Amino acid sequence: MANNQKLPRVVIVGGGFGGLNAARALKRTPVEIVLIDRANHHLFQPLLYQVATSVLPPTEIATPIRNLLRRQQNATVLMGEVTSVNADRQLLSVSGFDQPVAYDYLVLATGAQGSYFGHDEWEQYAPGLKTARDALVIRNQILKAFELAEVETDPERRKELLTFVIVGGGPTGVEMAGALSEMAHATLADEFRRINPRSARILLLDAAPRLLMPYPENLSQKVKAKLEKLGVEVRPGHAVELVDAEGVIVNGERIRSRCVIWAAGVSASPAGKWLGAETDRAGRVKVLPDLTVPNHPEIFVVGDTAFIIEEDGKPLPGVAQVAIQSGKYAARVIRQRVQHEAPLPPFKYFDKGNMATVTRGYAIVDSKFMRTAGFIGKLGWAFLHILYLSAFQNRIIVFFRWTWEIISNQRGARVIYETRPPEKNG
Amino acid sequence: MANNQKLPRVVIVGGGFGGLNAARALKRTPVEIVLIDRANHHLFQPLLYQVATSVLPPTEIATPIRNLLRRQQNATVLMGEVTSVNADRQLLSVSGFDQPVAYDYLVLATGAQGSYFGHDEWEQYAPGLKTARDALVIRNQILKAFELAEVETDPERRKELLTFVIVGGGPTGVEMAGALSEMAHATLADEFRRINPRSARILLLDAAPRLLMPYPENLSQKVKAKLEKLGVEVRPGHAVELVDAEGVIVNGERIRSRCVIWAAGVSASPAGKWLGAETDRAGRVKVLPDLTVPNHPEIFVVGDTAFIIEEDGKPLPGVAQVAIQSGKYAARVIRQRVQHEAPLPPFKYFDKGNMATVTRGYAIVDSKFMRTAGFIGKLGWAFLHILYLSAFQNRIIVFFRWTWEIISNQRGARVIYETRPPEKNG
Repeated sequence: MANNQKLPRVVIVGGGFGGLNAARALKRTPVEIVLIDRANHHLFQPLLYQVATSVLPPTEIATPIRNLLRRQQNATVLMGEVTSVNADRQLLSVSGFDQPVAYDYLVLATGAQGSYFGHDEWEQYAPGLKTARDALVIRNQILKAFELAEVETDPERRKELLTFVIVGGGPTGVEMAGALSEMAHATLADEFRRINPRSARILLLDAAPRLLMPYPENLSQKVKAKLEKLGVEVRPGHAVELVDAEGVIVNGERIRSRCVIWAAGVSASPAGKWLGAETDRAGRVKVLPDLTVPNHPEIFVVGDTAFIIEEDGKPLPGVAQVAIQSGKYAARVIRQRVQHEAPLPPFKYFDKGNMATVTRGYAIVDSKFMRTAGFIGKLGWAFLHILYLSAFQNRIIVFFRWTWEIISNQRGARVIYETRPPEKNG
Repeated sequence: MANNQKLPRVVIVGGGFGGLNAARALKRTPVEIVLIDRANHHLFQPLLYQVATSVLPPTEIATPIRNLLRRQQNATVLMGEVTSVNADRQLLSVSGFDQPVAYDYLVLATGAQGSYFGHDEWEQYAPGLKTARDALVIRNQILKAFELAEVETDPERRKELLTFVIVGGGPTGVEMAGALSEMAHATLADEFRRINPRSARILLLDAAPRLLMPYPENLSQKVKAKLEKLGVEVRPGHAVELVDAEGVIVNGERIRSRCVIWAAGVSASPAGKWLGAETDRAGRVKVLPDLTVPNHPEIFVVGDTAFIIEEDGKPLPGVAQVAIQSGKYAARVIRQRVQHEAPLPPFKYFDKGNMATVTRGYAIVDSKFMRTAGFIGKLGWAFLHILYLSAFQNRIIVFFRWTWEIISNQRGARVIYETRPPEKNG
């Protein structure tokens, strides 16, 4: 596959955890790396809910991919949106590029997106939380709801404006509900004169019988109790039947709300379609134990885009650790092949455990080493999240912002950008 | 004017330097204050160029107005866009409000906006720099130009993408040119593989015979020399004749560019039209020595929206200090009237001097106490700008970012939000 004139070219699509780690792991391998992403930045998605709730500006969890790879001379970063893959001719089409991009090895790390269970028309009323822009849309919507309520004179409409519905009781839904409740009770509490932000109603709905299904039941009960103490109405076993401009219908009941946030289903990016490969129901590509696509030993699929089954028969979850480890593994297989080394054992996920945060001072940790809920959990959570942030500058600033929020209740990113263009004068 | 049942109501339109300082100065006066702004935040406009050039995220120079006034119980902040004033009935119409807002005293502090000298069609090709959103538009455009150049194969188009034209040689134009040049030569320099960001061409055009006209000529010469050392092509005496999708025409010469930034004319907000009051050519309301509008002793116009002439016959410039001082003065006149105190002397501007920054380590200062160019000027500039930032959190973070940029060349806010919505999979 490698020719004699030049180095084999590894094209990586996606600069998230999977793609970035694949690129980095090839630093000392004699290959030419081309990383393509439609955004210019690597986004630290686990903290996206903090952008949506005005704790952090998006720039603090987003770093230009080319900045992260600036010292890696064998890597070129290109911004563009891949539209199709020609697996027979080993070519990628990228919108905006003059010509297709050829590859010797291809790593698809294109992530996942919100899934509305076949009701794509709900998206316009209930934005999801996957990109920096998504988070800004939700932030605008939350901040505007309070602003509009302050000028609203009709009590019914005011109530609608102050009703927030979060669909999905996974980590994102739990984190959004906790952060939103703290926002209403602490950050905004003393800043309004006509409404009482504490009166905001926050509902967390999930079709599943309890929150945070993959966690042990006792942790999930603790989280529910904690959220309820914060005033959140937690409703497990509630499947959303309709989302529209007036709110949601759930278990036959209409809940009127002007701010519905989607933290439920996720589906893989269209990589499976590009390849015509076999996928699961969520669109994830079924890969072989070495993370390649059947019949295409030169194409790897990693992270949220891959459907990876280990010996125990359970598919791996769509979390950052799976993306990081599968990205690195794909890089190791490529290195082994380029350098004609001995074949590697199949990919094996090392589960470091899971964490979810509820408030500034409360998180749960579920790992082999530790199972805890509370402030100790939050310290561990904060330490690890800061450690995994990519840019040194952001680590310092995010640490300062979190400390400052605990001390003062202040959040530093409460700006609504959506202002109408100024009226022309003349 | 005040009735016996309730406190006189002071309505302030605009939460910039003028309006915010008027509100704060009325903290202990027995009035009810209603501050209306179409944005939810007070924006520190002097640092907006740093948002446009990826040094700071907008949230660090923008703080919610209601947060700044949270402890001032006599102030209510409402988000809305004033559309007209009925001066006879003392009512304001605000879009989105159920009913007009009545006032006893009105302070109009609505600021200024870009002016295209009668060529409003240029705006779409050459965005100005007045709001947080404007700065994000320009940031996107600059970052995208480099990204597009990296994937462009045609040398001519690549050159166009790497040509940046700044129209206007006032402080904003100078600051943009300096920050953009540092971005190309330091921040981005090692991050591209196909282009050399240092080859970016940056032109600073102005119709006036020299940069920074209100400054002494020797400082303006120093700034020109400094910018030229940074590779900026400074062209005074160059009036722009046309702006379109392909660039600009200036002194008959076509300069092809995909990124034209407007830092030239400014015109006042439409307050003058609302009042049917006499204005200057830039739309600023001609006010009396007590900053009220002729025949309306209850209406004040302050800051960039006012045309204020002092004894020497020269109108005051549209700078933050004029807005701050005129806002405070209007508040003092209102307090004097409400409390039936002795009349105040006419408004008198205390000129603390001007500063403009060129690079991370170079600024000019022109004041009665000090006239300097260089690093000492920059230290003074940085100190004062951090001092005037409104939120404590932002002061710390901005200080850290500036220090970090000097040490590392890194800029923390290089994120392009403008990504297309993800393709649906299903």
